[in-house]
Formats: sequence, C-alpha cells, structure tokens
Amino acid sequence: MTEQSIRRRGPYAKSAERRQQIVDEAYRLFATRGFHGSSLREIAAAAGISLGNLQHHFVSKDDLLVAVLARRDELGGGPPEPGDRSFGDHIVAQAERNEAIPGLIALYSVLSAEAVTADHPGRDYFLGRYDQLRAEYAGELAALRDAGRLHEGVEPEVAAATIVALWEGIQLQWLYAPDTIDAARTLRAYLDLIIT
Amino acid sequence: MTEQSIRRRGPYAKSAERRQQIVDEAYRLFATRGFHGSSLREIAAAAGISLGNLQHHFVSKDDLLVAVLARRDELGGGPPEPGDRSFGDHIVAQAERNEAIPGLIALYSVLSAEAVTADHPGRDYFLGRYDQLRAEYAGELAALRDAGRLHEGVEPEVAAATIVALWEGIQLQWLYAPDTIDAARTLRAYLDLIIT
Repeated sequence: MTEQSIRRRGPYAKSAERRQQIVDEAYRLFATRGFHGSSLREIAAAAGISLGNLQHHFVSKDDLLVAVLARRDELGGGPPEPGDRSFGDHIVAQAERNEAIPGLIALYSVLSAEAVTADHPGRDYFLGRYDQLRAEYAGELAALRDAGRLHEGVEPEVAAATIVALWEGIQLQWLYAPDTIDAARTLRAYLDLIIT
Repeated sequence: MTEQSIRRRGPYAKSAERRQQIVDEAYRLFATRGFHGSSLREIAAAAGISLGNLQHHFVSKDDLLVAVLARRDELGGGPPEPGDRSFGDHIVAQAERNEAIPGLIALYSVLSAEAVTADHPGRDYFLGRYDQLRAEYAGELAALRDAGRLHEGVEPEVAAATIVALWEGIQLQWLYAPDTIDAARTLRAYLDLIIT
C-alpha cells in the first residue's frame, strides 16, 4: 500500500464510503417501497447508522433522491458502445444488459410513475430525462431517414417516443413475468418494423 | 319520492355511500402518493371520518386497495364499443377517452410499478391483468392475421405485448408532457405499421 492510498483511507474516504452506503440502502428501499413509502429513519436503520448521522450526509429525503437518481444514471449507463454499432443494435444491447439489473429497472419504474405528481422532488428529473431521450432518439432516426434507412411514413419524433414508451412498458411486464416476456426481442421486432 | 326510494336511503344506502366515499379518497391518495405512501389514518381524515369508522368498512389497507382496483376497472372500462368497430379503432378510441381521466392513469401507473415487489397486495391483480390483456390482444391479432390483414412477419404475441407496453409507457410520457405527447396518435402509428 502506498502512502497515497493510505491517505485516501482517512476521514474523507470513510465519509464517502458511508455516503455511498446510505445511497445504496435508499436505492434498495425506494425500489421496493417507493419514495413516499420509505422514511429517512428506515433508511438509516438499514444502513446501520443513526438518523442524526444520516442527516449529516443528507439533510432531506429530496437530497437523497437526487443522489439515488444520479447513482441510477451511473449504473444504467453501461460500457461505452463501439462507434460502428447501429442505433437499433445499441438499444437492443442495452435492453439485454438491463436483464442483469432488475432492481434498478424496478426502481426506475416506481419512481418514474410516482414522480409524475406535481409536488414530487423527482418530477423535474424525469421530465428532463424523457425530453432528452426523445430528442436523442429522434435525432438518430432522422439521420437514418436521411440515409434512406427509415420505412416510408415513419416520423422520427413519433418513433422516438414509441421506443421510450415501449422500452419502459415492456420492462415492467418483464419484471412481472420474466419467463414470458423478452424485452430485447420485443424492442428488436419494433425496430425491424421501422428501420430497413 | 316513492316509498321504495325512501327505504333505499336508509342505513344500508348510507353505508354504501360512505364506503364509496372512502374508496374515492383512497383512490385519490394512492394516485398521488402511492399505496405504501398513504396511511389508513390519512384516508380516514380525507374522508372526514375516524380511523375506527373507516376500519368498520375496510379492515386493512389491502382490502381497500382491492376495492380501489375494482373501481378503476369500473371507471376505466368506458362504454361498450359497437360490434363493428375494428380492433385498432377500439384501442385508439379508448386511448382518446383516457385523456379525460389523468388521475386514473396516474393511479394505474404508480400502482402497476409499485406492485411488482413480491409482498405487494396488488401484485396478483397486475400479473393477471397483463396476462389477460396480452391474451385478448393476441387473439384479436391472430384473427386479423388469419384474415390476411396483419403485415408479414408480425407475431400476434409480440405485437400484443408491444401494444400493452407502448400504451402504458406513452400514457406516462403524456402525464409529464400533455402538450407534447399524443398517446392515441402514437398508438395509431404503431397499429398502422402492423395492420394493413
């Protein structure tokens, strides 16, 4: 162990570890009971610390939700794709990787539905995320159209919203019936209908 | 007022009204805060009655959830369709009617995601409902295929799961951005890709 790595395990590293541990427990509780259904007290108990100690790291449940969503983006990103992968292959590959993280998928499903209410602290996150995903996919689909690879009559904006909606909806069905539903195959079937 | 209608407003009618009122308040609270996020005490307070009085009608929150889901089916069913309507027109017309009931759509989105956890009392309801919807749509689509009206290569089971998933997913996007997203039009675009 070098001097530098020893220094890294000082108070700062310990605090970062503790913070990470709280986020992991919050993530697990939000995924199973929803945001409104989990209390800071329960999260503290799950992390084996006092409520006061938890509040030293996160002053409110809203702060903690923002950290959980950031963690979600970190975990959900997956490894970078090789540049030569097509748009459709990229989506199907990501859907296949998602099969390894059902807890994360459940968290996302619960929070995205729960956060639609006006006073939910996650509302802006999901509003922005849907806008961003639709814009990104619509851009990719418009490029395919310009390359003559989109079936006639397919509108990039409508197809972009469809991919986002189908992906979320089919993952929820898969959570209920993992032996019946193949999310990646269902997405591939839609993509084959619109891309030549 | 006839003698019969006077009798109807006796203790039994009053109890049924009270029960309905509790279900309506529970419905509203579950839709905004989720099942785990709402307590029987809050629902009683919203209905203007004591917790003891509420428990006279519903012994547990699970009982109340079952009543709320039954109410959801009642309200969500809509008027019966004329028999000559096509499968696609039926779906698009129902999606258009859903625009008038955003609260119900939000309730359904929150509960269907929340109920995926193993110990949730709504789990069997949604598991059964997804199975039933997929089987119903797959049957309709198989009939269209047999009539030569399904595009080649479209599998009824995959398309059925896609319609259920897309419908739920696009309604959630619509709840976030009602001015940007047209759920009925998005469904129609998919149906036009698979039905000739």
